[in-house]
Order: sequence, then C-alpha cells, then structure tokens
Amino acid sequence: MLSEPMTEIAHPTRDEIELSAVLHALSDPVRLTMVRYLAVAPEERSCRSFDVPVTKSTCTHHFKVLREAGVIHQRQEGTARLNTLREEDLDARFPGLLATILEAAAEPQLTART
Amino acid sequence: MLSEPMTEIAHPTRDEIELSAVLHALSDPVRLTMVRYLAVAPEERSCRSFDVPVTKSTCTHHFKVLREAGVIHQRQEGTARLNTLREEDLDARFPGLLATILEAAAEPQLTART
Repeated sequence: MLSEPMTEIAHPTRDEIELSAVLHALSDPVRLTMVRYLAVAPEERSCRSFDVPVTKSTCTHHFKVLREAGVIHQRQEGTARLNTLREEDLDARFPGLLATILEAAAEPQLTART
Repeated sequence: MLSEPMTEIAHPTRDEIELSAVLHALSDPVRLTMVRYLAVAPEERSCRSFDVPVTKSTCTHHFKVLREAGVIHQRQEGTARLNTLREEDLDARFPGLLATILEAAAEPQLTART
C-alpha cells in the first residue's frame, strides 16, 4: 500500500471562492501577515517557518481559515503542511484584489499591530 | 438653546483608518451591499432607504461597523442618520482598495447571497 496519508485536504475550486470569505480571511492582521510572507516566498512554507506571534495551534487555525476561503493551497508532506498562495486563482476570480490588499498592507501602521 | 442633538458621532480620522477594520467591515455581504448602494448614491442615504433583507436595528448595527471602520460618514438629521461613503479618505489611505473590492463585488456570485 502506497502511503499518501491525508492528501484529501479540501479546497474550494476557483469558482467557489467567495469575496466575503476572502475579505474575512484577510481582515485578521496575523493572517494577513502570513499571506504577505507567502506572497514573497519562493517556495512552499510550513506553519513553523512564519515569524508570527502565535502558537502552533493558532497558526494551524489561521491557515485553515485561509485555505477554506481559497486564499492558500495546503499540501501534506509527512507531518508538515506546506502552504502556497493561490495568487493565480484569486487574480482570475477577483482581478487586482490580492495585489491591492497586499499593497495596502504594506502601509506602516500595520507593522504596529500584534 | 440651539438644537443640534447627537451631532457628536465618532469617526476615525483618515490616518486612523485601519486596513483590518475596513476588510472586516466589507467582509459581510449585507454591509458590502450597503456600500455598493452608497457608491452609486448621488446623495446621503438613510438606513431605511436601502433594499437589504435586514431589520432596522440590524441595519443600524451594520452602519455602526462601517462608520467605526472609517468606511462611511454618518450625520444626524432629525431622527435619521444620513450616510455617505468616505471614498476620498479610503482612497487616500489605501489607494485603489475600495474600487477593487467594489469591482470584485460586482461578480455574479454575490447576488445569490442573502
């Protein structure tokens, strides 16, 4: 038996991505910070590789919200979940939205949030 | 005594408007619908003038969330609160954000939401 455990991680299809869910997912400063990291990441990132002030379980929760909203894709590899931003899907669904939010997030005031 | 009751409605200044609050405010389909109405309104609109499937008190609550996020401006006139979109402030604070979200909201799938 080939071992590919937990590969059935549910993701909305491109067409199922909803604006309200995306905006809600990105309205949390920690989740937005994670997305900003992913936006500049050259490769898949695991939860623990993020410099955010939250516990691992909170981090896992935030990634779940992002995944269910269609903002990120998650892939299981051993015990780690590797995350990538669904930039192409988001841009096809809501042109310019992610880029505009990332640009807005680059404003100085966000860095003061905890 | 001149009567100008309840004119002290609190609004964040332009610089106090936070991205997370704006995204949260717009992540609710009803609030986003209200904002879409305001975006095309030639003048101030009262709560009751909106065609949204919510009670007056829920409408009032939604407008409060929008006002506290800096998305709308509210002005008391008699018993009514008149609402306008803070387009100029939002665009100065987060260039292109409101326009991009309004454009994304014009996608067909949103109309099916209740």
